[in-house]
Amino acid sequence: MSRTTESAARGGAITDAAASNSVSAICAAAKVASRVLASASSEQKDRALAILAELIEQRAEQILGANQADLSDPRAIGLEPALLDRLELNAARVAAIAAGVRAVIALADPVGEVLEARTIEAGVELEMRRVPIGVVAVVYEARPNVTIDCAALCLKSGNAIVLRGSSYAARSNRVLSEIVVEALHAAGLPADAVALLDGADRAEMAELVTQDGVVDLVIPRGGEGLKNALKEVATVPVIYAASGNCHVYVDLGADLGKALAIILNAKTQRPGVCNAAETLLVHRGAAADFLPEALAALSEAGVELVGDEATRALAAPVAVGRADEEDYRTEYHALKLCVAVVASLDAAIAHVNRYGSGHSDAIVTGSPTSAQRFAAEVDSACVYINASTRFTDGFVFGLGAEIGNSTQKLHARGPIGLRELCTYKYVLSGDGAVRG
Amino acid sequence: MSRTTESAARGGAITDAAASNSVSAICAAAKVASRVLASASSEQKDRALAILAELIEQRAEQILGANQADLSDPRAIGLEPALLDRLELNAARVAAIAAGVRAVIALADPVGEVLEARTIEAGVELEMRRVPIGVVAVVYEARPNVTIDCAALCLKSGNAIVLRGSSYAARSNRVLSEIVVEALHAAGLPADAVALLDGADRAEMAELVTQDGVVDLVIPRGGEGLKNALKEVATVPVIYAASGNCHVYVDLGADLGKALAIILNAKTQRPGVCNAAETLLVHRGAAADFLPEALAALSEAGVELVGDEATRALAAPVAVGRADEEDYRTEYHALKLCVAVVASLDAAIAHVNRYGSGHSDAIVTGSPTSAQRFAAEVDSACVYINASTRFTDGFVFGLGAEIGNSTQKLHARGPIGLRELCTYKYVLSGDGAVRG
Repeated sequence: MSRTTESAARGGAITDAAASNSVSAICAAAKVASRVLASASSEQKDRALAILAELIEQRAEQILGANQADLSDPRAIGLEPALLDRLELNAARVAAIAAGVRAVIALADPVGEVLEARTIEAGVELEMRRVPIGVVAVVYEARPNVTIDCAALCLKSGNAIVLRGSSYAARSNRVLSEIVVEALHAAGLPADAVALLDGADRAEMAELVTQDGVVDLVIPRGGEGLKNALKEVATVPVIYAASGNCHVYVDLGADLGKALAIILNAKTQRPGVCNAAETLLVHRGAAADFLPEALAALSEAGVELVGDEATRALAAPVAVGRADEEDYRTEYHALKLCVAVVASLDAAIAHVNRYGSGHSDAIVTGSPTSAQRFAAEVDSACVYINASTRFTDGFVFGLGAEIGNSTQKLHARGPIGLRELCTYKYVLSGDGAVRG
Repeated sequence: MSRTTESAARGGAITDAAASNSVSAICAAAKVASRVLASASSEQKDRALAILAELIEQRAEQILGANQADLSDPRAIGLEPALLDRLELNAARVAAIAAGVRAVIALADPVGEVLEARTIEAGVELEMRRVPIGVVAVVYEARPNVTIDCAALCLKSGNAIVLRGSSYAARSNRVLSEIVVEALHAAGLPADAVALLDGADRAEMAELVTQDGVVDLVIPRGGEGLKNALKEVATVPVIYAASGNCHVYVDLGADLGKALAIILNAKTQRPGVCNAAETLLVHRGAAADFLPEALAALSEAGVELVGDEATRALAAPVAVGRADEEDYRTEYHALKLCVAVVASLDAAIAHVNRYGSGHSDAIVTGSPTSAQRFAAEVDSACVYINASTRFTDGFVFGLGAEIGNSTQKLHARGPIGLRELCTYKYVLSGDGAVRG
């Protein structure tokens, strides 16, 4: 069946609405579809995902053609190399996208799990059931792979999804989303369960994030600029996958060999990601023993260093620039590290809570008491004891996959996996039960 | 120790901040206190609650004196009787407030529970631990009992609380919050963990709900006006305990005796509460058998009735007014019911999802298939099968107590108990573990 016939096959009022192409009509159609998807069986959802993976492989050429058109668009020419790299697909990347979809099939379906069950008053049986959230909107940058990653996770968790990608990736996203629609249809699921907005302008995004009662959740995947833009306009709940200003604190009495291995791993193994360390804190009683060797090793590894006066005094012959307040707040996303000496465990905890982003923070210590105090009092999604911050990841944590990493405290904290894309409802059954 | 000495005893930078009395200073002090409270033992928190219950009983006279001053304030004279009733305390109500605190002591401490534990890569041990949210702000109307109810639930769940009551209850709230501070101090817990704002003006509330990164959650307890006011200004996450426009649907083939008992209970047992039914839907195949008797019984019970044309055609001799679209949306909070005949189960589900508030909705049916479809497709926090909507309540559900009832889908849905006042964090322990 061609994609044109496919579109026509949606039929009825929903198509008419979607065809009108307004954001509110597209979201309303997604809402209707979400109610069908919420009741779909695991088998049916997995069948759609299997077809999706297959179609992605079969249509690799078409996908790459559309991507080539995005890449050679005059607007794309001016993009920074890092952004162009994210926009670009190739045969290996397309294969990886299909493999990602198959990995989602392998995950357990979170929907329908009975979280609690008990009998309450009047013989009423209470069940707390995990259910999909409904309609999830994902706002993201020019990364076509995100289109499929997010669609697959939402489909598996029974949610309809409205994708708002970047206009730079418009052609790639169009082909990919059409393939998702085709897979849904082939599996007997409603095509409106996935929709792609044009990514045309800010007004479109503002309309999307104010669809109260229709869109149930907005997940932005992007930088601080996108976050601030959403904060101003969104009335629909948003889970911000915010930046990671992560810390490693070396306590008095820590094993300094382990401390060095951890900060080197946390800073240099993959410096561009959100769980990489940005600030090293060292107890003043450990500074003289630890810092000269650690700074030399970090410098050797290509890390640019800035530090407070106490750090700089111990640095020679390594060059350490002067750190200011702004450095404490900065996520470098690069081979650069801020270093500071602190007077105590309390000072370290206070520093992390003041300047950190609540993402991932580590203590290296030999003291179980210090470890537990750090774990309890550092107000972050992930707290590490004698381990690198680099482990924060939905796949590594055993959640299977992630749609982002939340530094908020409500609903989802840390990796947002399938379970976090669900809510729950209470289902109560009686035999004519009334309250006395 | 007098309350003046008590205040002076707080000491240090926090007092200076709180003494400045600005909303931001009070919230910042609550944040510092919240970190201590998060690590407090169950025993210490329960000791504070036991002292609180005792002090409330000992100071009953003082509490009633302050309440009398609120009641006889010239501003209070003009209040509606229902509002005056909510503002008024008496000896029995003070005793009930103390008993409520003791009931919270009896609940299990949710903090520290290990929700998941597993070993991930490199031998790292992962624990997902339940932890307090941090600083919770509660915005409420002129009900002094809420001051203690909410303070007790937040204290038990390890959260600091900033109370923003009504200026009508200012004197009552002041005495009650001072008693909480005294109990905290006597148990060795930080006094800044509970704070009361004056309730003076809207600017104060706007400042409170924009304390990003300091206040972690706002819970409004009030009507739609309060909700809309917050929607406009809040940047801190809010859990709205919204209205309950609840439905009872009588399916084709339902046991009509049970159906009648359920609608009578749902509408008349306590019509002023949010889990009372506001609309009765009846399958057209059951209408002729059910409605004449049901309408007569409801009318007999003092219920004012409005209905669609199909209902009105079956009503004689009972008087049934004409229902319009607005009735479908209205939470009467009174002995008034809207009645409509629907063509099918699908039409009933669509009606509930269109007009309902996602609170509590019931089906009366003999069909397990209809029951499961209604439970799955009605997008409400609580869905009832052959039972009255009136059971929705944190205490009845076995959560122990509730701070409100959420009709949102994120974080908390349905009754907000101690568990819902918590978030979680991942604590990961290694022995120098790094990511490969």
